[in-house]
Amino acid sequence: MTLSPWRPARRAERMNPSVIREILKVTERPGILSMAGGLPSPLSFPVEAMREASERVLRDHPQAALQYAASEGYAPLREWVAEHLRGQGIEAGPDQVLITTGSQQGLDLIAKVLVDAGVPVAVETPTYLGALQAFSPCEPAFVSVAGDADGPRAEALEALRHDAPGCRFFYVLPNFQNPTGRMISEARRAALVAAAQRAGVPLVEDNPYGDLWYDAPPPASLTSRWPEGSLYLGSFSKVLAPGLRLGYLVAPRALYPKLLQAKQAADLHTSGFNQRLVAEVLRDGFLDRHTPTIRARYRLQRDAMQAALQRSLPPGSEWDEPRGGMFFWVRLPEGCDAAELLDTAVTQGIAYVPGAAFYAHAPDRRTLRLSFVTLSAQEIDDGVAVLGRVAREHLDQLGEPTP
Amino acid sequence: MTLSPWRPARRAERMNPSVIREILKVTERPGILSMAGGLPSPLSFPVEAMREASERVLRDHPQAALQYAASEGYAPLREWVAEHLRGQGIEAGPDQVLITTGSQQGLDLIAKVLVDAGVPVAVETPTYLGALQAFSPCEPAFVSVAGDADGPRAEALEALRHDAPGCRFFYVLPNFQNPTGRMISEARRAALVAAAQRAGVPLVEDNPYGDLWYDAPPPASLTSRWPEGSLYLGSFSKVLAPGLRLGYLVAPRALYPKLLQAKQAADLHTSGFNQRLVAEVLRDGFLDRHTPTIRARYRLQRDAMQAALQRSLPPGSEWDEPRGGMFFWVRLPEGCDAAELLDTAVTQGIAYVPGAAFYAHAPDRRTLRLSFVTLSAQEIDDGVAVLGRVAREHLDQLGEPTP
Repeated sequence: MTLSPWRPARRAERMNPSVIREILKVTERPGILSMAGGLPSPLSFPVEAMREASERVLRDHPQAALQYAASEGYAPLREWVAEHLRGQGIEAGPDQVLITTGSQQGLDLIAKVLVDAGVPVAVETPTYLGALQAFSPCEPAFVSVAGDADGPRAEALEALRHDAPGCRFFYVLPNFQNPTGRMISEARRAALVAAAQRAGVPLVEDNPYGDLWYDAPPPASLTSRWPEGSLYLGSFSKVLAPGLRLGYLVAPRALYPKLLQAKQAADLHTSGFNQRLVAEVLRDGFLDRHTPTIRARYRLQRDAMQAALQRSLPPGSEWDEPRGGMFFWVRLPEGCDAAELLDTAVTQGIAYVPGAAFYAHAPDRRTLRLSFVTLSAQEIDDGVAVLGRVAREHLDQLGEPTP
Repeated sequence: MTLSPWRPARRAERMNPSVIREILKVTERPGILSMAGGLPSPLSFPVEAMREASERVLRDHPQAALQYAASEGYAPLREWVAEHLRGQGIEAGPDQVLITTGSQQGLDLIAKVLVDAGVPVAVETPTYLGALQAFSPCEPAFVSVAGDADGPRAEALEALRHDAPGCRFFYVLPNFQNPTGRMISEARRAALVAAAQRAGVPLVEDNPYGDLWYDAPPPASLTSRWPEGSLYLGSFSKVLAPGLRLGYLVAPRALYPKLLQAKQAADLHTSGFNQRLVAEVLRDGFLDRHTPTIRARYRLQRDAMQAALQRSLPPGSEWDEPRGGMFFWVRLPEGCDAAELLDTAVTQGIAYVPGAAFYAHAPDRRTLRLSFVTLSAQEIDDGVAVLGRVAREHLDQLGEPTP
């Protein structure tokens, strides 16, 4: 296959087919019980509210909804976001809110405005694969910040001052992180913000899962602790529906104009119809009634998976029960490579995502990600039982002397 | 205002507030008769068809429409695009169609995949401002290809072989270009493609206005003449509605995977709800019935503006009657600077876009862009009369000896 007369950019050579994309294709095969997806449960979509809102928008303001619109976003939606965040301790005006085409686009805009080729950008280890993909076109030098069960370690962040001078930002998912499900503790948040300030490294706080807590609301955001040093990303994908592609970015006023210019160049503006649709759905405190129904649903599934893992995984397996979100992060016993076991697992009818894809460097090959939100308790039980069997059989083979 | 702790990327320093954006703000003032907009007429939006389609999508496939979807786009919509283009002589499979969040996003993806900092990218002079903005984050060295009333000159394109070696592509709007309204003639198309092939410079053909012809359909596309050397961009913004942010990109198979990876990193996928909505609207040949109604509407407005310009502009003014699209491109007499005259024009109640913003280099300051599609014939008449008066008064002052 020849590319002539085309000459791809240097960055294009570093773009790769997403491993997860390939794995998700497998999960579309009939009969596969998939714990690989990153999709919310379609049963959580407020279809009736969407239907009514769509009717109202197309009845009352069809021409405005279908016309070109402001790059900043639809004013009532920006106001809703500012108000919603105020409830979470973030003081930001509607003029600091930029509506994006999913929060994935926010990552793309941030990279364009802040990342030069070769400059350090710090990420958690592991981290959200889509962020690595969104930042990559700007060719940063990724630096991994090591962590533990409470979150990234503050000393590792502070060490960037010497180890990665000029680091443009630290990208962090504080709540029920994708892929690990880990929530950063209150004490660790305080320590991280202090470390970031001392190191002069601003924060990009990505919070798509924060409203999906099952035991207690998470501690206050990083942004509320250091507003002028934080960019905040939010999304409607997990609490309403991802198919509308609606997210938002909250920026310090000094940085906002550049992000807006990048947004305008990227797609002019996010669909005004979708913005009005969601603004209409959100009226009168809709989320205050809707989000608890999602929490109740997912909590039962989380509990089912916790029980199933305890029942079915071989000794030496490690995981923490997530306090929210959509994922368990499992570390199989020594001798297991989750990517190598996947073929067998698929043959036996289940799928998951091997953890290696989520690391910028030095992947832990024993890890894997399991989603619990699109399966019934029975399916979770069955799926985890197969995973346990696959791991046990592999360990048994390891243990047997070669004939 | 301090940016600390933020350090913007080098490219961010070259981002500027859009001139057009500032001008459009003026046009929102009450009482301003604006010929500045780049908006289609809201009277052309098929509101009733959208309403019915939205109802059907949310009734029949709500969960699929609201869920995450494939980065390539919704299969039936990709098939429609391939079929539609076949009718225009472009042989491309649905597997070559990438649905984008407006065709503006197509420009962003193309830059990411093809442009390295400092490499030449050729553009018409003048050209679509949004393309300059979309390409700029990848920091190309813009090269302007000179043209005349028939389009860019083939010799100027062929000269890139020596003047701009390694030029990554030539970005060209063949039909009713924004801003000039110019259509490239049949002979010039053939000459341009031959020149591009000799120079080894591939083409990016942007065709948002091609269906809006008022006298006769335009000649065959550049892509149909050199499929393996052309990227083609299309849009639903001008024939259905821009507020849905739906466009598409057709790529040679060798280049498609990289564009898809860039798309995935940029916003995962374009709203599946909007894609299904439009696929539903387009069924049963809807555009074959709808587009002629837009043509009939805009043709009358085009005729009104042509008559008004002939009646009201001072001698020495130059323009060509556009054969389609939304814009007249006027060159005022010697001694006029369209940007300088804008203040007076706004004071007298009209607005337009000075042409200088559309040039990558060496702007012609006598030029300006007038849109005719959102005004009535009477408003066009009144607006152009004011423009003529402003220009005449300026010329009169120039002619008078200083007291």
